[in-house]
Amino acid sequence: MRAFINGNVYVSFRPIIKVEAFLVASGRVVKTGSSGEILEIAERLGAEVIDLGGKTVLPGFIDSHMHLDELGEYLNMLDLRGVGSIEELKERLKEFAEEKDGWLRGHGWDQELFAEGRWPTRHDLDEVVSDRPVLLSRVCLHAAVLNTKALEITGLIDWDSEDVIRDENGEPTGIVKEDAFSFAVRKFDEVITDEEYLNGLIKASEHALSRGVTTVDFVSVGRRALKALGRLDAEGKLRLRVRAYLNPGENLEVLESLRKLGIRRGFGGRMLKICGTKVLADGSFGARTAWLSRPYRDAETRGYPTVSKEWLGRVARETHVAGLQMAVHAIGDATIDMVLDVYESLENVEGAGHRIEHASLIRPDQIERAKQLGIGLALQPHFVMTDWWVVERVGEERAKWVYPFRSIVRVGIPFGLSTDSPVEPLDPWETVYAAVTRGKYEGIPLAELTPDEALTLEEALYAYTAGSAGILMENDLGTLGEGKIADFIVVSVDPFEVDEKELRKIKVLETYVGGERVFRAE
Amino acid sequence: MRAFINGNVYVSFRPIIKVEAFLVASGRVVKTGSSGEILEIAERLGAEVIDLGGKTVLPGFIDSHMHLDELGEYLNMLDLRGVGSIEELKERLKEFAEEKDGWLRGHGWDQELFAEGRWPTRHDLDEVVSDRPVLLSRVCLHAAVLNTKALEITGLIDWDSEDVIRDENGEPTGIVKEDAFSFAVRKFDEVITDEEYLNGLIKASEHALSRGVTTVDFVSVGRRALKALGRLDAEGKLRLRVRAYLNPGENLEVLESLRKLGIRRGFGGRMLKICGTKVLADGSFGARTAWLSRPYRDAETRGYPTVSKEWLGRVARETHVAGLQMAVHAIGDATIDMVLDVYESLENVEGAGHRIEHASLIRPDQIERAKQLGIGLALQPHFVMTDWWVVERVGEERAKWVYPFRSIVRVGIPFGLSTDSPVEPLDPWETVYAAVTRGKYEGIPLAELTPDEALTLEEALYAYTAGSAGILMENDLGTLGEGKIADFIVVSVDPFEVDEKELRKIKVLETYVGGERVFRAE
Repeated sequence: MRAFINGNVYVSFRPIIKVEAFLVASGRVVKTGSSGEILEIAERLGAEVIDLGGKTVLPGFIDSHMHLDELGEYLNMLDLRGVGSIEELKERLKEFAEEKDGWLRGHGWDQELFAEGRWPTRHDLDEVVSDRPVLLSRVCLHAAVLNTKALEITGLIDWDSEDVIRDENGEPTGIVKEDAFSFAVRKFDEVITDEEYLNGLIKASEHALSRGVTTVDFVSVGRRALKALGRLDAEGKLRLRVRAYLNPGENLEVLESLRKLGIRRGFGGRMLKICGTKVLADGSFGARTAWLSRPYRDAETRGYPTVSKEWLGRVARETHVAGLQMAVHAIGDATIDMVLDVYESLENVEGAGHRIEHASLIRPDQIERAKQLGIGLALQPHFVMTDWWVVERVGEERAKWVYPFRSIVRVGIPFGLSTDSPVEPLDPWETVYAAVTRGKYEGIPLAELTPDEALTLEEALYAYTAGSAGILMENDLGTLGEGKIADFIVVSVDPFEVDEKELRKIKVLETYVGGERVFRAE
Repeated sequence: MRAFINGNVYVSFRPIIKVEAFLVASGRVVKTGSSGEILEIAERLGAEVIDLGGKTVLPGFIDSHMHLDELGEYLNMLDLRGVGSIEELKERLKEFAEEKDGWLRGHGWDQELFAEGRWPTRHDLDEVVSDRPVLLSRVCLHAAVLNTKALEITGLIDWDSEDVIRDENGEPTGIVKEDAFSFAVRKFDEVITDEEYLNGLIKASEHALSRGVTTVDFVSVGRRALKALGRLDAEGKLRLRVRAYLNPGENLEVLESLRKLGIRRGFGGRMLKICGTKVLADGSFGARTAWLSRPYRDAETRGYPTVSKEWLGRVARETHVAGLQMAVHAIGDATIDMVLDVYESLENVEGAGHRIEHASLIRPDQIERAKQLGIGLALQPHFVMTDWWVVERVGEERAKWVYPFRSIVRVGIPFGLSTDSPVEPLDPWETVYAAVTRGKYEGIPLAELTPDEALTLEEALYAYTAGSAGILMENDLGTLGEGKIADFIVVSVDPFEVDEKELRKIKVLETYVGGERVFRAE
């Protein structure tokens, strides 16, 4: 048992309830109150007393949509962001190669920053590592430089493609882009050892905890990830709560295994729970592959769905009867129509907890319809920053329906906040800043066009905690009320006491999961 | 939060720790102490106070080996035990048919008790129910009477077999036995509707709770049972903790599904957890099918294994690498040798929690070997009563190794107690009585031959609570220590204050699971 006293403790955000102190037993908050009250009980119980010294405590953040394994992979790479020369890149690669076995991967270089004023080549890399494959992706994630070994092993050295760049003699330079880049990345993914993979998951989990995230909805979980997480959880090495939305499998074989065993939403271990299935139904605004009901403003395309309505319907029905939640990636309004049609066709859909992920361009009629069907949304406020060009892409009229956070609040649809990490930074304070300021300090056109769609700080914090718990259907997460799970963070400053511009500078000092400290800032 | 005060509370049995009062929060015991201490804390916490009025509280019993669905089926049947005439049997069947749809099943009649002095026939049954199949099994479970509809639907009416009894005209009388009986039962099992099946599980769970059992190890769980339990748990209808040991499937398809999804020991929902696989490796003493290293004393057979060592080894390896527990039914010492060989062949077997079920005839060298390998045992003391003829069957020399409970205690093997219900009554007090008295008041030869193998009351209660929790590898069950799960019972009398003969008369007054009352005697 532990008593936390002398704090500035936010129990919940809707309504805002604050206390000075709380008592944790068996991983849950059993009592909140004044420091005096809690201290007196703690002494009688023989509980450990922790003096918060006036610091601010908030419920832990729940990132309702992210990719834990990809984040782990990303964190395991050589970080080349900001490197100023090819010589420095080589030096860094050399150090990395000394500490790491197997295939080597790095990310983040930008030839615009190189003192040499040229692109790196496979020969640069070969000078440092020639006996095992190396892939260093450019900051844009559309190109990479490979060493000779990597070109050979992937077979790209023999590709006759514009995406494999060649010099004046027709020899590959080592630079690959687009399709050739994606192909190389897949090959590199395939050889990640189980140990590396597990380490990636652990690193990603610890990263999340260090940012104040105590639960993640890990979407698009493959069999490898599920097995690895199950093992980590059984061995007590998983300290982050992970909620898994699984790839149903190309022939629904994963969904079939779940159904055969009767595994329903919420089935899991100590920290890991299976929630349901996740399906991708369209692309992105960036690639103009999000499926819109009318063409993009700046191109002759409406985008397209990546699945048929029939297939989506089949997954939805099987997920639904199995007692699992369904989560569908839908960015464009045409995709959202399709998903809503599919959900509407299910018996007793309300209360089943089915979700739409992203819902980036969602029309008012769709918000109403989602509300009627009881659909939850997983939203990513930081997309507002990244998709700063979106008004141009969809036109002013429709841009009013892009990331319409407050309209969603007004209608009262359950929603959670998230980052799609590693697509956006996992840091909740970046997300909260984006949700609250909507890019107005960065001069983002969407902010000027739709200033009313910014969330208030209360709304953002509510959505990121109890809101995210709501779409997980876990009502013992997201607040520090009596009886709730004691997942909380200690932060450097009260977010309600700072100017909104300062929100992104808030630091997480400590993170507690089930009342146990799992992170402390140095 | 709830405080229980003024009790005679056994926190644990090894050593015996007693308190007056305890406080429960979030389903766990958070503090034990004097009534004064607990009352004072409870008042400050605003906890509900329950005055135990001096009654005795014990940790809930954990039945470490039973068949929940078969118990449910049994409880759903028409109970014909003690019926004194065919007329009464017909009357009872008539009432049962009025309240129940579908195929009808009853159990327990004995023609020796019938006033008519004859066996019942299909015509007796047809007079009451002719439009749907009826099967009424004899008390011995080796024979039954079927109505004409049942004979027709099962096809038994056309069987040319000694097991389908015929009258002087060659017409089937309705009585079937042995193989024909088993065949008919299987046919009846197949048509149980999902609703009946679910109701059976609920009835069995409530029955267990009413007997003071708060957790069961449900062995030989099929896919139907697992799905049904998952559904009940998700819907909050499962109030008993159920630990499942699954049939791996004829072609290991269930084990394969578990492995594909990475489901390990302990994976589950609120009340249900998957622990591992269960395999049957031999038969029983009763049928002389338990496999002995030397022939039975009273027959020219050693019994036989029901699986090959190769197949058992394959299941064990796959179960082991999947992070699941393996439980093997092994009654005879030759089977135990085989199982121990298989366990010994696994890497890092110690700590994996593999088990032997029954271990009825276990030699001293096998007890030592099981200890070395870290194998747990699930034992059924009531078999001592049922197998009262066992000395004759295996001979005096080997009978010393039959149900050698105290030898097992002395060597220090982890073991739990159980009933194999519905084979033996689920009532823990019958089991405790059998463990402690070993049938000496019933004049059972084994008691005379091996009086030292009886357990003390402390040993029996320890094994039935913390011991059973130990072979489940769940150290938060089995005692009422601080931090443990608050599963407990209130009983009519302190078992340490009564003569051992009175143990079987102890009544369970209330049962609590996770601090919530789930049963109260009327």
